[in-house]
Amino acid sequence: MGDQIAIAHPGWGEHLHIIARDKVFYHGHAVAAVAATTTLAARRGAEKIRVEYEVLPPVLDIEAAMAPGAPILHDDLVCLGPPPVPSGPTNVARRISFAGGDVEQGFAQSELVIEREFTTQMVHQGYIEPHATVADSFEDGKVSIWCSTQGPFAVRELTSTVLGIELSKIKVIPSEIGGGFGGKTTIYLEPLAVALSRRAGRPVKLVMSREEVFRSTGPTSAGRVRVKLGARKDGRFVAGEVVMHFEAGAFPGAPVGGACMCALSSYRLDHFLIDGYDVVTTKPRVAAYRAPGSPIATFGVEQVVDEVAMRLGMDPIELRLLNAVQEGDVAPYGPKFKAIGLRETLEEARKHPNYSAPLGPNQGRGVAAGFWFNAGLQSSASVRVNEDGTAVVTTGNPDIGGSRVAQAMMVAEELGIGAEQVVPRVGDTDSVGYTDVTGGSRTTYATGMAIIEASQKIIEQLRERAATIWGIEVDGVSWEEGRAVPANAAAAEVEPLTLAQIAAQMPATGGPIIAQAALNAQTAGPGFATHLCDVEVDPETGKVTVLRYTAIQDAGKAVHPSYVEGQMQGGAAQGIGWALNEEYIFDENGVVENPSFLDYRMPVASDLPMIDTVIVEVPNPLHPYGVRGVGEPPIVPPLACVANAVAAATGLRFTDLPISPPRVLAAIDGD
Amino acid sequence: MGDQIAIAHPGWGEHLHIIARDKVFYHGHAVAAVAATTTLAARRGAEKIRVEYEVLPPVLDIEAAMAPGAPILHDDLVCLGPPPVPSGPTNVARRISFAGGDVEQGFAQSELVIEREFTTQMVHQGYIEPHATVADSFEDGKVSIWCSTQGPFAVRELTSTVLGIELSKIKVIPSEIGGGFGGKTTIYLEPLAVALSRRAGRPVKLVMSREEVFRSTGPTSAGRVRVKLGARKDGRFVAGEVVMHFEAGAFPGAPVGGACMCALSSYRLDHFLIDGYDVVTTKPRVAAYRAPGSPIATFGVEQVVDEVAMRLGMDPIELRLLNAVQEGDVAPYGPKFKAIGLRETLEEARKHPNYSAPLGPNQGRGVAAGFWFNAGLQSSASVRVNEDGTAVVTTGNPDIGGSRVAQAMMVAEELGIGAEQVVPRVGDTDSVGYTDVTGGSRTTYATGMAIIEASQKIIEQLRERAATIWGIEVDGVSWEEGRAVPANAAAAEVEPLTLAQIAAQMPATGGPIIAQAALNAQTAGPGFATHLCDVEVDPETGKVTVLRYTAIQDAGKAVHPSYVEGQMQGGAAQGIGWALNEEYIFDENGVVENPSFLDYRMPVASDLPMIDTVIVEVPNPLHPYGVRGVGEPPIVPPLACVANAVAAATGLRFTDLPISPPRVLAAIDGD
Repeated sequence: MGDQIAIAHPGWGEHLHIIARDKVFYHGHAVAAVAATTTLAARRGAEKIRVEYEVLPPVLDIEAAMAPGAPILHDDLVCLGPPPVPSGPTNVARRISFAGGDVEQGFAQSELVIEREFTTQMVHQGYIEPHATVADSFEDGKVSIWCSTQGPFAVRELTSTVLGIELSKIKVIPSEIGGGFGGKTTIYLEPLAVALSRRAGRPVKLVMSREEVFRSTGPTSAGRVRVKLGARKDGRFVAGEVVMHFEAGAFPGAPVGGACMCALSSYRLDHFLIDGYDVVTTKPRVAAYRAPGSPIATFGVEQVVDEVAMRLGMDPIELRLLNAVQEGDVAPYGPKFKAIGLRETLEEARKHPNYSAPLGPNQGRGVAAGFWFNAGLQSSASVRVNEDGTAVVTTGNPDIGGSRVAQAMMVAEELGIGAEQVVPRVGDTDSVGYTDVTGGSRTTYATGMAIIEASQKIIEQLRERAATIWGIEVDGVSWEEGRAVPANAAAAEVEPLTLAQIAAQMPATGGPIIAQAALNAQTAGPGFATHLCDVEVDPETGKVTVLRYTAIQDAGKAVHPSYVEGQMQGGAAQGIGWALNEEYIFDENGVVENPSFLDYRMPVASDLPMIDTVIVEVPNPLHPYGVRGVGEPPIVPPLACVANAVAAATGLRFTDLPISPPRVLAAIDGD
Repeated sequence: MGDQIAIAHPGWGEHLHIIARDKVFYHGHAVAAVAATTTLAARRGAEKIRVEYEVLPPVLDIEAAMAPGAPILHDDLVCLGPPPVPSGPTNVARRISFAGGDVEQGFAQSELVIEREFTTQMVHQGYIEPHATVADSFEDGKVSIWCSTQGPFAVRELTSTVLGIELSKIKVIPSEIGGGFGGKTTIYLEPLAVALSRRAGRPVKLVMSREEVFRSTGPTSAGRVRVKLGARKDGRFVAGEVVMHFEAGAFPGAPVGGACMCALSSYRLDHFLIDGYDVVTTKPRVAAYRAPGSPIATFGVEQVVDEVAMRLGMDPIELRLLNAVQEGDVAPYGPKFKAIGLRETLEEARKHPNYSAPLGPNQGRGVAAGFWFNAGLQSSASVRVNEDGTAVVTTGNPDIGGSRVAQAMMVAEELGIGAEQVVPRVGDTDSVGYTDVTGGSRTTYATGMAIIEASQKIIEQLRERAATIWGIEVDGVSWEEGRAVPANAAAAEVEPLTLAQIAAQMPATGGPIIAQAALNAQTAGPGFATHLCDVEVDPETGKVTVLRYTAIQDAGKAVHPSYVEGQMQGGAAQGIGWALNEEYIFDENGVVENPSFLDYRMPVASDLPMIDTVIVEVPNPLHPYGVRGVGEPPIVPPLACVANAVAAATGLRFTDLPISPPRVLAAIDGD
């Protein structure tokens, strides 16, 4: 399962992607790097570089990539995965397949079978801060890299791989990050800056423009999703089949694995077949984007579920509750669910006032559920007590969504002190133990567990110090509410010692109090969300206005509830943009035509209503506090949720994204 | 004993020193700080500041400071220490006293008593890189400080104290350091840069000029040392009395404690009295300088010992061997020596070819021994295994003398891998556990012990991982020569696993392998050195040329021998400069007249011969490898050693430093 989650790792073609060699694979693929003492001098230097291109035919969509006789991007690409897969030269990099039961028999047993095909376009994460890096190289061969990244250790490993520099010679210092959403789990500028710095003998800074971000960094895949769902008349699902083709862009790595894991995991199905294909095209190489793959799969599946409800005349929430997975059910990708909260989110949705608010003309209400498995992976954390009784917690996870504060709160919870007494810090690759990227909604979960473990080790030491101060055995000391107290009130006639009092005596009682913990959380707490959306469709212009939006999600345990709500609102906002307006528009040569925020239409505040949130807490039994990842589930339902609302408002089923005014108008007009 | 070693700590007057308030205490004392976007603008801003000074009488030496009716620098200064001490307003901040036996009786029993008084002048550490800092402040009240320091945690604590900012809000990132020698264990610019940054809302950089370094940072004390030594005719010492007055400059803190601890610690004395006084004067506030205080005390004591040898017609090494302390002797400051190497250094000196090299006219040979107690203090260290089988060791000790490499070597020694496989790093205050300054010759000793302990914890984990891989109990795994091997060859039919092989399997066997350790080494291994010096004195000019110089020192265990030799050579070079040429020259108002390297005469390469070294290794029983501090002992003997050589060459005893050409010429000429 580890290799199926769509977090960037040293992959096929990494070194060819950073800078083109014999072949330029897409418009925006870097061909040269120039460093100079001023931007102007660098531009002039770049202008002096002459490249002679032999123009090759573009491969701009899945059909073109898979057509017989299609131009092959990579002669040495071999399709991985279970047969049947193409043998010989191909643009299909990988097949992923999950099957259970007998899907043909399942459809035969079904009383209602709906089959539809859906398409989505490439969309970008749209993080505020463009990619930027400073690299400095030293005479002893060591290099330091400052960059905007979700994963300093990933940057270290990838840069080591691409440049052939030993891992231990590279130090990566993550800067504060202006958003990542998965798009900053890989490298672009870092090896170039290092190589230039090594030649120049000086630090080199590279900063992308917004246009370069659009043209040269990874959006998520465009996808083609065929969904076939069979149900009985009572609404019980019998069989499901989902076949997905995702565009990886120029190098393999479409998030089809994640899509396959999520496509049918919300519902009990005796018979299922899930097939996913990773297809290369001459477009920007995709990167991770929040719950990679799941929104695309869910855009198809949840619309077909909606259509089943419509056809059977059932309430869409009741239909989902009838089929929803719960503890003990087995997910299509293998594991048996422990306690999960899909049903609870559906029940909260059903009773939410927004589900019964009156609707006017041209208005419609949509429902969609969504699933993200969440990741665990490797984390390290260290906790230290300062001389003044405050504490520092350092991890290797850049903070992209408030994780730092949650980390401080976990230390505070364990130690029994105020969260403001704990300073959370993000370390560089030489300051903290190996830690996987901030991504996969793993940080508060997995790194949190390391933090809790380290904090408990701190408490052991605090008890030992108190025992030393009191001259008693450590067994005689308890830790309660931030203080060492005698375990047996009668046993010791001593005053409790606060953390600050013990900290002040550290030098005399054994020196600094520090602790750390490291783990590989090979498990995670799956996350489910149910969203509600009301829209109004303007029949004159085709514009879809979101009237109400409600995100309901199982957080397991919300350590910092308002940050959890922020994640839910942010994911919903991104999903709404993806549903209604966002798309990469390519010309016939594969040149992106809208590489700016003026032409690439992300939602702004005035485009959205206040997004209501309901946090459900079904504790994750794998985490001491019950935490499960919260960052990714909220982007899963919106694409389908908005489409279902538009379908309710218009009676028209939109199978292709974005549901933009021209497309809506064309559908209304029957074009 | 901890508070007697002369390493800066939050001290009296710290906040008044950083920037003058009502009273400017010396020429060079900062009165205002200006930040601007250009240096020129800052200068112009500073020029607009008008200060009206009421000129107070200067207090420029110990006599003036202690004279009846002397101007009192600090009305609220109280003299600390055992009586008799001044009561009421005084410029004497502290008295330190050690006594044993009955010194009067001892002198009465002596057959030879020599009493002399010596003086030394303020000298500067002369580190290459001037003080420089960048401070950045953030809206949440946190501040980051980048600076050239020997102790990032000391900077954090001192800045917190001066500015009243909570410790946990301050992060100090130590830059690579261009030398410190004790002078960078305190703060100057840091609080000013933070205060300016907080007002400006921008990062602020402050860099001293060399002139500012001389005028405004801490040299070591000028000292007056009276030594009285009584011996029998056979050379056995009977009684010793040393009375020292050190100038602290404008605020208390002269290294008189260290001087008292070292003055008579090389020799067995039944009767002794050591008195030290910390005296404030209107000069720059002193800071630590390599073995603070000991060279000044030793300048006196070792000349008197030399004179005893001359008067008794004894070989000066034989005399010292006759009286040298050894294991089991009790030092005047209290502790009983464990294994120490003074005798061994004397024996090495006696047989060294440089001790029998022929001397020509106007040439003379000097011998001197020296002692430094060395420090332990608090240290933390963390060790991490990288995915590729290399390791990182991070400590909080900036590397001022090669300690990083020694740290890597200790990890390598424990793990059984090559030192080049270990990357040593210096962490910031949020990345490592509390660690006291790089100073007191404590780093390889105390931080080394933390590193060794952390490395041993790593080995425990490596054994556990190997056991997991092999499916056996951890007891069945040994760690030998960088590999896990079955503890019982017959017990397991498995191939040994190298560190790299285990590292590659970390994710599957439990995640990252990391360990750390922290301690307060309340002990240390005392360090002794014996130096030999041959000089030629030019009777025409008074110039003293050092012909040969030999530094012999007990390192306990030299982890990195050539770096140990570098410490011995560097200390000797600084001591020779102090002996022959270096001095702060003040005018009658207390203005330094030679604040540049042109006028403040430090030795350059052409001034010195190759300094020969002999490393003696008498293992320190307190350290697992036998390490004892090596950085400070080599600056202790040179002042006396050179003076003794000049005495041998000229027949004249120089009791006042520096032994510069004008002074030598005047003595030769009988002025």
